[in-house]
Amino acid sequence: MVHADWTLHPDRALPSDPVVRPIARTIVDQTLRLPIVSMHGHVDAGLLARDEPFPDPAALLVVPDHYLVRMLVSQGVPHDALGVPRLDGRPVETDPRAVWRTFASHWHLFRGTPTRYWMEHVLVDVLGVRERLSADSADRVYDHLVERLSDPAYRPRALFERFGIEILATTDPATSTLPDHAALAAEGWGEKVVPTFRPDALLHVARPGWRADVERLGAVTGTSIGSYRDLVSALEECRRAFVAAGARATDHGHLSADAVPLDDSVAERIVADALRGRVDDRDAAAFSGHMLFEMARMSTEDGLVMQLHPGVLRDHDPAVFAARGPDVGYDIPVPTEYVHALRPLLESFGHHPNLRLVLFTVDEDTFSRELAPLAGVYPAVRLGAPWWFLDTPDGMRRYREAVTDTAGLYNTTGFVDDTRAFCSIPARHDLARRIDAGFLARLVAEHRLDLDEAIESAVDLAYRIPREAYAAPKTGNAFPLEPALATAAKEHA
Amino acid sequence: MVHADWTLHPDRALPSDPVVRPIARTIVDQTLRLPIVSMHGHVDAGLLARDEPFPDPAALLVVPDHYLVRMLVSQGVPHDALGVPRLDGRPVETDPRAVWRTFASHWHLFRGTPTRYWMEHVLVDVLGVRERLSADSADRVYDHLVERLSDPAYRPRALFERFGIEILATTDPATSTLPDHAALAAEGWGEKVVPTFRPDALLHVARPGWRADVERLGAVTGTSIGSYRDLVSALEECRRAFVAAGARATDHGHLSADAVPLDDSVAERIVADALRGRVDDRDAAAFSGHMLFEMARMSTEDGLVMQLHPGVLRDHDPAVFAARGPDVGYDIPVPTEYVHALRPLLESFGHHPNLRLVLFTVDEDTFSRELAPLAGVYPAVRLGAPWWFLDTPDGMRRYREAVTDTAGLYNTTGFVDDTRAFCSIPARHDLARRIDAGFLARLVAEHRLDLDEAIESAVDLAYRIPREAYAAPKTGNAFPLEPALATAAKEHA
Amino acid sequence: MVHADWTLHPDRALPSDPVVRPIARTIVDQTLRLPIVSMHGHVDAGLLARDEPFPDPAALLVVPDHYLVRMLVSQGVPHDALGVPRLDGRPVETDPRAVWRTFASHWHLFRGTPTRYWMEHVLVDVLGVRERLSADSADRVYDHLVERLSDPAYRPRALFERFGIEILATTDPATSTLPDHAALAAEGWGEKVVPTFRPDALLHVARPGWRADVERLGAVTGTSIGSYRDLVSALEECRRAFVAAGARATDHGHLSADAVPLDDSVAERIVADALRGRVDDRDAAAFSGHMLFEMARMSTEDGLVMQLHPGVLRDHDPAVFAARGPDVGYDIPVPTEYVHALRPLLESFGHHPNLRLVLFTVDEDTFSRELAPLAGVYPAVRLGAPWWFLDTPDGMRRYREAVTDTAGLYNTTGFVDDTRAFCSIPARHDLARRIDAGFLARLVAEHRLDLDEAIESAVDLAYRIPREAYAAPKTGNAFPLEPALATAAKEHA
Repeated sequence: MVHADWTLHPDRALPSDPVVRPIARTIVDQTLRLPIVSMHGHVDAGLLARDEPFPDPAALLVVPDHYLVRMLVSQGVPHDALGVPRLDGRPVETDPRAVWRTFASHWHLFRGTPTRYWMEHVLVDVLGVRERLSADSADRVYDHLVERLSDPAYRPRALFERFGIEILATTDPATSTLPDHAALAAEGWGEKVVPTFRPDALLHVARPGWRADVERLGAVTGTSIGSYRDLVSALEECRRAFVAAGARATDHGHLSADAVPLDDSVAERIVADALRGRVDDRDAAAFSGHMLFEMARMSTEDGLVMQLHPGVLRDHDPAVFAARGPDVGYDIPVPTEYVHALRPLLESFGHHPNLRLVLFTVDEDTFSRELAPLAGVYPAVRLGAPWWFLDTPDGMRRYREAVTDTAGLYNTTGFVDDTRAFCSIPARHDLARRIDAGFLARLVAEHRLDLDEAIESAVDLAYRIPREAYAAPKTGNAFPLEPALATAAKEHA
Repeated sequence: MVHADWTLHPDRALPSDPVVRPIARTIVDQTLRLPIVSMHGHVDAGLLARDEPFPDPAALLVVPDHYLVRMLVSQGVPHDALGVPRLDGRPVETDPRAVWRTFASHWHLFRGTPTRYWMEHVLVDVLGVRERLSADSADRVYDHLVERLSDPAYRPRALFERFGIEILATTDPATSTLPDHAALAAEGWGEKVVPTFRPDALLHVARPGWRADVERLGAVTGTSIGSYRDLVSALEECRRAFVAAGARATDHGHLSADAVPLDDSVAERIVADALRGRVDDRDAAAFSGHMLFEMARMSTEDGLVMQLHPGVLRDHDPAVFAARGPDVGYDIPVPTEYVHALRPLLESFGHHPNLRLVLFTVDEDTFSRELAPLAGVYPAVRLGAPWWFLDTPDGMRRYREAVTDTAGLYNTTGFVDDTRAFCSIPARHDLARRIDAGFLARLVAEHRLDLDEAIESAVDLAYRIPREAYAAPKTGNAFPLEPALATAAKEHA
Repeated sequence: MVHADWTLHPDRALPSDPVVRPIARTIVDQTLRLPIVSMHGHVDAGLLARDEPFPDPAALLVVPDHYLVRMLVSQGVPHDALGVPRLDGRPVETDPRAVWRTFASHWHLFRGTPTRYWMEHVLVDVLGVRERLSADSADRVYDHLVERLSDPAYRPRALFERFGIEILATTDPATSTLPDHAALAAEGWGEKVVPTFRPDALLHVARPGWRADVERLGAVTGTSIGSYRDLVSALEECRRAFVAAGARATDHGHLSADAVPLDDSVAERIVADALRGRVDDRDAAAFSGHMLFEMARMSTEDGLVMQLHPGVLRDHDPAVFAARGPDVGYDIPVPTEYVHALRPLLESFGHHPNLRLVLFTVDEDTFSRELAPLAGVYPAVRLGAPWWFLDTPDGMRRYREAVTDTAGLYNTTGFVDDTRAFCSIPARHDLARRIDAGFLARLVAEHRLDLDEAIESAVDLAYRIPREAYAAPKTGNAFPLEPALATAAKEHA
């Protein structure tokens, strides 16, 4: 069956309830056109620095999307057939059209998933596809996409402007010298694309590549790192370089949220062991918890917002990891504890005027039990958007329903897209704004909130709050208000 | 903007679905005017014994409300600015109007929270405010409130009658001699205001003030407490005094739900250590679990309903605790386990005809997994209302949706307000009745329940069940039916 | 009050939202008449082999239903009054009419529970009751039921046909020689009623009856089991017998999901200890985890689908267990961990083309955090239906809402009824189809799915997916399409 008229419904993802929907539409009309503030993502800055045409549809939309790859794998499609490279260089499917066909013929697997929702937005709204994806339409859609991607209007910077992105934060290893950001700054894009300091590789001392990364850190900072103190100094220097390059935040992916400081002597001993390649897992875990505490201390000094993403067991299948490396779909959430884990950090810095700690989770069981109560009292704590497996229509709704009671709306950060799929950034913000509008509309329909309050809150969640959340707490909101927002604000005043 | 017509919508907190709402309205019409049975709260009996005018609006509505204080603190308002006293006596804001202005100017923070919902009810319905709260209206609202509070119709007992409270249970330390309850009884209020026996301070032997409390216990009972046996005897004597004063229940706040009995010799040794000030945390935890078991045993003897509120880590920030003491917003829920923890207690007393054990939680993850299955088989167990961070519109809805499958409606206690904010008691019961009506109405709309059954169940949840739940199981329901209920019961028969 | 017109509403359990309901009705109209594929249940094959009339209404509907018994017990009805037998043979209520009256007079306890929903379906739709159950109608309903049960149209095989059951899998101990299945096969029912291999009794070596069961295993296989190797060989032989008798699957009820292999020498030592009656609990737990791993290995060899039902603490009250034995309502869920527990098994067999591992849970907190992410990447893993305390209208809805984001629809198994109540099989599948239709209809109403996709998915969930899920992965779907489905498929093509 050919669906020659694939479109996005203007009311998509709004509640179906006929009392709530018109209210939600009124609210979302005030937010859908606001600029996008994308303060946490995994887009490569080089993409924008080079501003080259995107490669083929498979390389753009299929191969690097681990949400998509994992679903196909779960139904028996081999990684090879999707063109996911092997570390040993053995051949995988290299024909992008073949990869695309495989994806298109499994389109039904994504029913009800966020991948379906985002991809539909990308294909229809960003790339102008008009025919529903299927095995039958795969080739026609592919040809259409190839044509579009050769059009200069579909290069990264043109899309960036079309998407209405005001600022985009990338995620960068601590040892990066940020050449792409420098190049962008030289072309006047420095305020638009900012780096984020991610030191994970250096904090997990039992990682196989840790010593190589420490050497890289030494090279970057022009120091020789032979001790814990050297390591801390070098990290502080790298943070200064990131701040100078416009960074607003750090990002920390740890298995647990533990942030328990060690005595310096213990930290020194663990680093010494690690430098000799003789650290055990227990010490390594203790050290990463200690360094989380240290990162909070550094944030109180340099004002970088601290983002913590705990609770994911990476690379669950060691054989797949050995064959393909990380980020191919085998990261699985585990139960995460925040209350005891963060207590030492919050005791020391939870009321510090310079700290903003943004907490994320993939364990929704902690929404009402731990995260909302912590964010609802500690001035330093904000709740990040529902993350990863939870940044879905129903996940975002459950998040608002579970955390608002205790944390309110203003202890959250608004939406954080966390995506590496550049073309899906507008889809993700669009969806989040629809879900927030639907949530607020229900409160209005239940006479728990007035409409003017709901509209103001929706604008705040979509735009003001993320800007404010990622401004250094020390310096206050450094962003000037965009004209678009000023208008929206006036309209519902 | 002046909102000169602030009112409460008659359909507030009912489901928006246009099929469900009229059914919910039909149901709630039968419950909103039923008397309030408030079997667990933290109102000071002295308030009613003295029956003096309430002080200023800040002292009545802001300073003692830890829900409210914690939200303002989370957004950077210092405790001092809210007039929350310091233990060292250093000055805090003492101008109630200034405190009120600070609160009013942050009113938007409470959007979507239960504080917003309750406070709106208190201001509009109880205190007759007609203008929406804001920085702008703060002073006018304040002046209005001051005027109302000077009116004798707004004294505690007058409000008690106006609220339609049939019975109010307070929470009182085990060592209290209950003078306020005696004074009330002497004035004919003995059936209306009853004490609840709370022995926590005496059961947690590692608490700094434990030995002082034990001395107080000795003084009150006229005994010298030099051993575990002495302690148990004194507690039993205090329970008898509470029973004589009309108590229906005990209340137990423990970090965990562990109720594992120790050998008497071990208990004796721990008490001996504690009396010498040399108890460790492990022994203290074991002892509190043992005493929970003992409290169940005593309940089988004196018929006091046993309420257990586990799973809150108190005073998460030690510096705040040192500066301001407890109950200023830093109590955070932790994961709570019930199935293993309560097994010894239930093995011994779970089928005892004299025990009623009411379980509360701040960990909603246990609703369907542990609490409903336990309450759905052990005759002694009832589920308390969703508690603290969960006694919200959405929290109460999720509770009914999660526990009813396995526990039904009749293994719950109906609503327990657990509030220290006297003026908000009607708001809380009103809200609970609306949520229950909405839940039942959905069952009717989905043809899973007939309307007459839903109405009868709603009346039961609002009135009959809490009365019955807190009547001693041994003696059966000691409350005579109120005329209001008899009428309601007739109407939907 | 006599309700002489007790009927089932055609829209029952569909969403009330007036936008969603008509869509849901359109969807469910395509699934309600599809054949029933009941791949996991606890109906006794002997029931169908003998095909005798059912005994009295109490023995059919009350006494063996532990959902029902536990609710009555929780409200103080003694097991004796329900006719639940005592192991010591002491008398319990033997008059089925008295048992029925006790049940009927407590009918209100089941409001909002699945027992209410299923029983209503059984009484009204299967057994033709026309008067609402109550203390008053108890005798009349009882007499009606007695009359029906004497009618040959209400014998097991007649009902089986009337229910539209295409295939029914029973659950059978590993040591069963499956005489009832053989008898059924001899009468042409071999494709309709198939066994399931349940080896639990032999894998939990600390069970009191373990050695007796091992002896039985030896007798059945004609071997002498004196070692771990003997045990494994005998189990493999029993599996072959089950496969020969038409079994599609194994079933494993373990306290935890641990599947960590031991060295053979350790396994040998534990079995040796166990055979001497000297095994401790830690070794027993390790061994059961090891055997789960072994069962996965065997499945890769013989193609039996592997079902894992972890997380239930059986027989919570030891006194009740001693008095009445298992399965009388005292099994309570506990928190369950899957990610670490299953890692070794999935590392070895998670991509094996011959393994299908179906995971169930009674801990809904794992839906989005662990189960959906695992099923959404490992080709071997499928999510079983929400189980036991969660196979309820709201439980099934929450399941779809929580797992679909990450696992999609096609990594679930469709509905698995898991019932021992033969007459309620249609009620359970009917309900599941309604809930799935409601879930899909909401996606359509929110413009997240097209109607034709929703209909196709609903048919898949109701019929195609369970057939496919329980076909051996090695052999592919062995079921030919039923005419009814072919028609439905054509209609919405």
